Amino acid sequence: MADQDAVPPVDLRSDTVTRPTAGMRAAMAEAEVGDDVYGEDPTVNALEAEVAALFGHEAALFAPTGSMANQIALQLLVPPGSELLVDADAHVVTYEVGAAAAYGGISSRTWPAVGADIDPDLVASMIRPDGYHAVPTRAIAVEQTHNRGGGGVIPLATLRELRRVADEAGLGLHCDGARIWHAHVADGVPLASYGELFDTMSVCLSKGLGAPVGSLVLGSAEKIARARVVRKRMGGGMRQVGVLAAAGRYALRHHIDRLAEDHVRAARLAEALAPFGVLAGPVTTNIVPLDLTKCGFDAPALGAAARARGVLVSVLGPRTGRLVTHHDLDDAGVERAVEVLTEIFRG
Amino acid sequence: MADQDAVPPVDLRSDTVTRPTAGMRAAMAEAEVGDDVYGEDPTVNALEAEVAALFGHEAALFAPTGSMANQIALQLLVPPGSELLVDADAHVVTYEVGAAAAYGGISSRTWPAVGADIDPDLVASMIRPDGYHAVPTRAIAVEQTHNRGGGGVIPLATLRELRRVADEAGLGLHCDGARIWHAHVADGVPLASYGELFDTMSVCLSKGLGAPVGSLVLGSAEKIARARVVRKRMGGGMRQVGVLAAAGRYALRHHIDRLAEDHVRAARLAEALAPFGVLAGPVTTNIVPLDLTKCGFDAPALGAAARARGVLVSVLGPRTGRLVTHHDLDDAGVERAVEVLTEIFRG
Amino acid sequence: MADQDAVPPVDLRSDTVTRPTAGMRAAMAEAEVGDDVYGEDPTVNALEAEVAALFGHEAALFAPTGSMANQIALQLLVPPGSELLVDADAHVVTYEVGAAAAYGGISSRTWPAVGADIDPDLVASMIRPDGYHAVPTRAIAVEQTHNRGGGGVIPLATLRELRRVADEAGLGLHCDGARIWHAHVADGVPLASYGELFDTMSVCLSKGLGAPVGSLVLGSAEKIARARVVRKRMGGGMRQVGVLAAAGRYALRHHIDRLAEDHVRAARLAEALAPFGVLAGPVTTNIVPLDLTKCGFDAPALGAAARARGVLVSVLGPRTGRLVTHHDLDDAGVERAVEVLTEIFRG
Amino acid sequence: MADQDAVPPVDLRSDTVTRPTAGMRAAMAEAEVGDDVYGEDPTVNALEAEVAALFGHEAALFAPTGSMANQIALQLLVPPGSELLVDADAHVVTYEVGAAAAYGGISSRTWPAVGADIDPDLVASMIRPDGYHAVPTRAIAVEQTHNRGGGGVIPLATLRELRRVADEAGLGLHCDGARIWHAHVADGVPLASYGELFDTMSVCLSKGLGAPVGSLVLGSAEKIARARVVRKRMGGGMRQVGVLAAAGRYALRHHIDRLAEDHVRAARLAEALAPFGVLAGPVTTNIVPLDLTKCGFDAPALGAAARARGVLVSVLGPRTGRLVTHHDLDDAGVERAVEVLTEIFRG
Repeated sequence: MADQDAVPPVDLRSDTVTRPTAGMRAAMAEAEVGDDVYGEDPTVNALEAEVAALFGHEAALFAPTGSMANQIALQLLVPPGSELLVDADAHVVTYEVGAAAAYGGISSRTWPAVGADIDPDLVASMIRPDGYHAVPTRAIAVEQTHNRGGGGVIPLATLRELRRVADEAGLGLHCDGARIWHAHVADGVPLASYGELFDTMSVCLSKGLGAPVGSLVLGSAEKIARARVVRKRMGGGMRQVGVLAAAGRYALRHHIDRLAEDHVRAARLAEALAPFGVLAGPVTTNIVPLDLTKCGFDAPALGAAARARGVLVSVLGPRTGRLVTHHDLDDAGVERAVEVLTEIFRG
Repeated sequence: MADQDAVPPVDLRSDTVTRPTAGMRAAMAEAEVGDDVYGEDPTVNALEAEVAALFGHEAALFAPTGSMANQIALQLLVPPGSELLVDADAHVVTYEVGAAAAYGGISSRTWPAVGADIDPDLVASMIRPDGYHAVPTRAIAVEQTHNRGGGGVIPLATLRELRRVADEAGLGLHCDGARIWHAHVADGVPLASYGELFDTMSVCLSKGLGAPVGSLVLGSAEKIARARVVRKRMGGGMRQVGVLAAAGRYALRHHIDRLAEDHVRAARLAEALAPFGVLAGPVTTNIVPLDLTKCGFDAPALGAAARARGVLVSVLGPRTGRLVTHHDLDDAGVERAVEVLTEIFRG
Repeated sequence: MADQDAVPPVDLRSDTVTRPTAGMRAAMAEAEVGDDVYGEDPTVNALEAEVAALFGHEAALFAPTGSMANQIALQLLVPPGSELLVDADAHVVTYEVGAAAAYGGISSRTWPAVGADIDPDLVASMIRPDGYHAVPTRAIAVEQTHNRGGGGVIPLATLRELRRVADEAGLGLHCDGARIWHAHVADGVPLASYGELFDTMSVCLSKGLGAPVGSLVLGSAEKIARARVVRKRMGGGMRQVGVLAAAGRYALRHHIDRLAEDHVRAARLAEALAPFGVLAGPVTTNIVPLDLTKCGFDAPALGAAARARGVLVSVLGPRTGRLVTHHDLDDAGVERAVEVLTEIFRG
Repeated sequence: MADQDAVPPVDLRSDTVTRPTAGMRAAMAEAEVGDDVYGEDPTVNALEAEVAALFGHEAALFAPTGSMANQIALQLLVPPGSELLVDADAHVVTYEVGAAAAYGGISSRTWPAVGADIDPDLVASMIRPDGYHAVPTRAIAVEQTHNRGGGGVIPLATLRELRRVADEAGLGLHCDGARIWHAHVADGVPLASYGELFDTMSVCLSKGLGAPVGSLVLGSAEKIARARVVRKRMGGGMRQVGVLAAAGRYALRHHIDRLAEDHVRAARLAEALAPFGVLAGPVTTNIVPLDLTKCGFDAPALGAAARARGVLVSVLGPRTGRLVTHHDLDDAGVERAVEVLTEIFRG
């Protein structure tokens, strides 16, 4: 269908669009596999052990998506009829189609999202005690880095303060760590320093790390044993899934440190667009959040204009959008995007 | 069991504690009844028609509690997997034990509660569009008057603005009107002026109005037909419940206007306690919210000290509490409460 | 609206249609009440203690309907994602509008209903073990007497055998005892002999016993403490509900033994209709099940013809119906029904 | 870890244990992929179109497991609070961990499972009408071939009769077609002749067909559009999942007709074991159901004895087990299994 001379578009919509590399495909083609529902896929077992070790958790479980990994964790921490506290822009209450309530019976109250910032005192003030009259709070969730918060990194000190708040109230603490790799690279915080703070985590192999499919839930051995049952109930108990786990293992070895390049490229985009007053916040990882309110642009129009010139951007609302850098992008692509977008904004 | 000379305590915990009057009991004793699951209880049918007419709605349905009335309405407006926006202190996400999520599969995001105040622009900014990626927002709920918001009344103009916000996004608007009678009396707004703004409402007969049991859901004829099925699923399809509806009809005739007395008595309590810096906000209806942070008091200790002297107050948190005036309270009781509480606060 | 000379119809649709007697109304009018959400209604507390004692259970909880009482019990016994075994015609999977699955997340598999008969070996063969692959069975439910099973009584020996089956598999056993009073009167089995067999029970005050509203859940103190929370979540936490409990206490004192009269009247109806080949099974309590297949009658047509002549019968399907005797029926009414129905069947 | 001289066991536990062949791996390694959440994975899109065409359905959707494919379909056909009829041994109410009720709020009643046999009249008699009192029946599900029914094939005539029953009552009809390929090969019924009978179907690529992971839901374009949303809520919206779809496309081209070999091998096993009286039913596809009651054997003991000699069998209960033939098995393996099992049974 495509013209042979056609240049593929520069795709800045999301880091989910990356395709497996040749090396990754080779790893997949050679993967030793077995029936993972029986616990017999050696590549899955190895991946689960490796990721658990990275974060200092006892165990991990492979899941087909980050959404399922998050929802499994929430179902472990928050029984039906009790409550999760989370920010109002978090992935778990935005992009998971209501699964926490619809499937987990999980009530949620939210604090206002301001980038990736969190005020632990505000969170503490929202906690409801166990008892007969009010719905009891059971867990707090955070997202690191924060997708709708412009890829912002929650400081380790803030997370430690939240852990203290959770401990005082006897609550679970979950981290949606789909992009925690970026926080690790941007802030230089060891993965295990994050890991020790959370009862459950999800981490994703198919966004920044570039694997085609796959996330993991992390937690204690007891929790992960229960997670295995929940995963089956959610329809996530796959069979010879070592073919996917092999891609994940490859990504862990080759694609974490290189995220620094994505951060540099996002900074380059931010630097070029800053003069137009379209940045919705600071850019510290691989996401460039756009707010076109001041410049008077319409986000869908921007999306269409850029697409017409071979640059794909994410339109989130009438005035908001997003650029995301990732593995399948190079400097030339970024410069082309800079050229196209600056021309559009210059009007 | 009680000492004959014992004086019953002055009970300021809640307006739910009222007991039926002699007149109300007589009405109940004489009530004509039938099997309401078959739609054959004439007293229930009359009550439903009367309350629907008061608010200008097409139909109404009797329910055993305000919680069930609210939850039926929410299940009508918000399908499983979609979302309700509501303030973080609302009864529906606080005192209904997580039913919206647990039984309705209803996702919720909340805006910060500041008394009964609502910023319609903030609410508008939280709405998520229908679509594939995000959980779609389907309804907004408000509470009039606002229980945890110190009995505050949401101004009619604000509610009209919220209606506009809901209309622009195609959302339902629900009013938890358990104490809407107090708003009507305090602000002089006709009940029908409230009624016309909401797709569904709940109103309660057993709080300020003094009936022993009962609430109603209001809405269109089509919605109330569906509500009847949901009520049965919730276990609220009672039989000769005209004995309760008769109390409600009596309350509608005799106990609405007299709420002004409760407001005067609450104002008297507020005036007496204001010098101690313990009021959490202005007092405009029958609730006196207490915040003991400044005065250094502990709420459970206050509760115990008052109880020891025959005054019951509601303890909501370590530093927060509540006094509520109601039908079973007279001026002498209020003055006794003033005396006891001022002595305690004076230390 | 009704003609003064009009004779009220003979209502054989259900025993739910009974109206409170003068004595019962007097008891309601004099009832001492309090706020039952706070556990302070003395009449409710007394009723709960009395009913628990009747069946030898530790505790009981008042609920607005038998459906809610059943659903509370099932939610106590069967966690979401696990399974209940019950017969395919049971009230809990027929007339409770899917609440067990919709609100409790309770999976159900059913054995074929043959009147009130149960084959404990068949039930035992359906039990699924706890484990990772299959949905674990957690409870068995029975209905005594069995509504759609023609008011049939499950023999005590069968129930004891089921208890053994449940014990061997570590399962809970629930009795929907809405009409267990009829089994007690028909078979002469003490209520406590039933009570000792079940982990949870529901019993109803508003069917055969003639109270206007109300059922109770029975179980251990621990279970009933949890039941109180579930009841609130279901919207069943009422306030001065002693006005209803008083009717229930009156019914316990005056309306149990007289059920024998209802059984005699049902037998009279059965005897009169037997020659027409329309009885669906033996009549041992207060229900006369009709199956019109052989006589070639259409159930809705029978219903209409009878109604036109002042007799109300229950139409359950194209060829099935039901007559139910109850407190508000006298011998004259039964004879009138016999006259009308025999004339219709004679064609 | 394994001894170099060790012979891998003959694995008769399930057809889920198959590993991808070299040809299949090559197809995966070369697969063109894209972001399937955006609908941009060409290999997934091609697979979905191919499978829909095979069965004459408008559209299809890839899912990570057969369980998720089934649950998506059931959620499309049966709203929360309504009912599914299915046999008591069906995969959807046995091996999907209660998901239909827990996540879909779907009530179920079951008819007794007798192999793959179905009595359409019995099913018809269980249907409950739409209405206010009873939970309305919305769909019927069947399983072709029937896993716990010994791989039995439901005759096309029976399925057509069920379609008529469903049509008369306005119900949906779902086919769990995880192994429908075996029915097609065994009975010679065209896939489209099955397809035309069902509102929704699931078919599996990773059991008999030998792909590592993947199933599809089939239905109308409108249903599959809704299925896409449900899949995301279930956590099944994967990204570059063309790597798995490529295996599925390969399996469709190369692994359907060869199922006849699996059937021959299963027949060989059945023939060898028949003399011991351990067959639970006729063997017509790739499953050999065992019932050891008559021969006095204990199933776990049989499993252990066989495993010790390099043959893996499935233990389903104290007296029941299963042998399954599949792509990774050859004649030598079958003969080894025959030798080992006959020796064990000879005792």
